[in-house]
Parts: sequence; structure tokens; C-alpha cells
Amino acid sequence: MTMDNHAARKAAVYEAALQLIARGVSPAAMTIQQLADTAGIGKGTVYGYFSSKEEILQGLAEYCFARENERIRVLFADCCTLAGLEERAVAYLQDIASNRMGDYKMIAQALGTTGRCESVPACADELRDIMRTLLIRLQAAGEIDPAVSLEYCCTAIFSAVVGGLIGLCFTAECGIQSALPENLKMMLHRTLQVQQ
Amino acid sequence: MTMDNHAARKAAVYEAALQLIARGVSPAAMTIQQLADTAGIGKGTVYGYFSSKEEILQGLAEYCFARENERIRVLFADCCTLAGLEERAVAYLQDIASNRMGDYKMIAQALGTTGRCESVPACADELRDIMRTLLIRLQAAGEIDPAVSLEYCCTAIFSAVVGGLIGLCFTAECGIQSALPENLKMMLHRTLQVQQ
Repeated sequence: MTMDNHAARKAAVYEAALQLIARGVSPAAMTIQQLADTAGIGKGTVYGYFSSKEEILQGLAEYCFARENERIRVLFADCCTLAGLEERAVAYLQDIASNRMGDYKMIAQALGTTGRCESVPACADELRDIMRTLLIRLQAAGEIDPAVSLEYCCTAIFSAVVGGLIGLCFTAECGIQSALPENLKMMLHRTLQVQQ
Repeated sequence: MTMDNHAARKAAVYEAALQLIARGVSPAAMTIQQLADTAGIGKGTVYGYFSSKEEILQGLAEYCFARENERIRVLFADCCTLAGLEERAVAYLQDIASNRMGDYKMIAQALGTTGRCESVPACADELRDIMRTLLIRLQAAGEIDPAVSLEYCCTAIFSAVVGGLIGLCFTAECGIQSALPENLKMMLHRTLQVQQ
């Protein structure tokens, strides 16, 4: 079997897991049988690719994280203004809150458990590189305050992302029309803008 | 039995639960027997106050939340500058990250589950009142930009709190000496300050 085939078949199991999560099945309660049924393959076939559910969930987190990284890379590839960063970042958060919070919870859970200090995944490094490239470009263009460090910028963006996601999920679930998207853009703007 | 006695005995059970959580026992795995043993009372006595573990955990979240509100109220009672808000907020987050993340996880979990839209606890309203009082005072003193809404200020502070707590816990666990506290202060400053 080619590597591509192997990856595609693992991906089918990951997609089945995401479907189950979207239907409200918790990762802890999920069974290999459910995964096999949802993916439309035999249980034995699943075991041909993974030794345990634990391994599937760990792989799933990396699968989701790598896919988000690719989305983020494309989203910001031609972004060269702070206003563009604000618009795109908030649209991205709204898209996650509406369509794929399950994916994000998997990533957060994987980052929040077992040996995160020793083995912060390659995905986290990749995301850091994408953000650094964007921030350096915006700083060079005079769009971001030259007086602030890249570490500071990452802290500001990370805070807006986690605070924004929690808030957006909450307001979406309660059906509240809120000023949150505009407030998040303003927050990003004020934290990063060149000071007069 | 007086109400105070009743409250004190319930509090003993809550404190036992927090001790167990601090020792690494997950709330899901915790038993009434463990709670009774840790509190130094009989299992029957625990059932005299609570009908189920579920009820204990829900009560525990409110107990922790009310206590944090009281801490926050005292902390900011005489705060009348933006610099004071930044210093105190970051010191408060560092204290939580070092000493009582268990309490915070209980609060977050309770807010993140079951019927949160219908019954956002009275504690959340109380915290909102404390923050509004503080923000109105700082805005009147010319310390916070008069052009921003209170809702915006709350979003900015909430984002700094959740982003900061995740970051501080991570750096504390990994033993990293980081610029995070200074970056969080700068972030709060820039989001709220009067624009020149």
C-alpha cells in the first residue's frame, strides 16, 4: 500500500470520529465499533491502522491541528494590513464556533494532557512559524507597533482567540446577537497598532 | 441547627473535595466515601446535606465562584488607576495558577455544562457587577478610554484572564521563566488606555 493510501484510510477513521463528536458522542465514550460503523469499514480494518482508541484520539488531534494550520496559512498568506488580520481572524473564529468546535476541543484536549512539556507537537511549532511570518511581515509594513515583541503579539492573539471562541460559542448557543465580533476586532487592533 | 452551622458543614465537604482535586483525584472519579473520609465525617452525614455527588459538585462550583468574587471585590475595592488594575489582575492570575487551579476548573466546568443559558448563576451576575463598578470608576477617573463600551472592556479583560491563565499554567508546569506577566499587563494597558 502506498503512503497516500495509508494516510487516506487513517483519515477516514478520523472523519468518522469527528462525525460522532458532532453528533454529541464524547471521545471518552466512543467505541472502535462505532468508529468502524460510521466509517463503513470493518472493526478489524480499524485495528489494522491503530492499536487502540487512545492512539486514534491522539492521531485525530494532530490531524485536526494540521488541517487548521493549513487553513490559517492560506487565510493569512496575502494579508499585509492589521485591519486584514482583524477581519480574517474574527471570521475564522466565527467559522469555528459555528461549524467545528469538536475539532478544536480535540486539539485543546491533546495540548492539555500527557507530556505536553516534553513533546509539544510539531503542529504547535508549525503554527508559531506561520504566525511569526505574518507578524514580521506586518511589522515591516509598519502595521504593527515596532516597539512590541513577537512574543507579546502571540500572547495578544492567543488571548483574543481563546476568549473569543468561548464567548462566540456561548452567544451562539444562547442565540444572542452581540457586539462580540466587533469588540474582538477592536481588541486586536488596540493591542497591536502603532502607538501615536 | 442554625443556617451558619449548616453552611459550615457543607463547606467542610467542599473543602474536602478541593483537597482531593488538588491531590489529582478527578471530580468524575471522586466518591462520597472519599469525601467523607477526607472531611473526617461519616458517609451518612454527607448524605444528610447532599442527595448526590452531582449536587456536591454543582454546589462546589458556586462555593468556589462566590469565594473568588469576594477576593476580586476586596482586591479592586480601592483600585483607581489602570496601572493598578493591571498589577492586581496579573498578580491574581499568578496566584490562581500557582495555588488553586482546581477551584477554577470547577467553576469553568460548571459554567460550561447543563442549562447555562437558562440559569447563568447569580455568581456570574455578581462578578459582572463588581467589574462594572470598577470600570465605571476608572472611566470616570479618565484612566480608561471613554470611547469604549463596558462590554468591550469586559471582553478584553475576560480574554486576558483566560489566555493568561492557560499560558501561566503552561509556563509554570514547564518551569519556564517567561515575559508572560509583563506581556499580559501591556495587553490590558493597550486595550483599555485612553488613546492619544
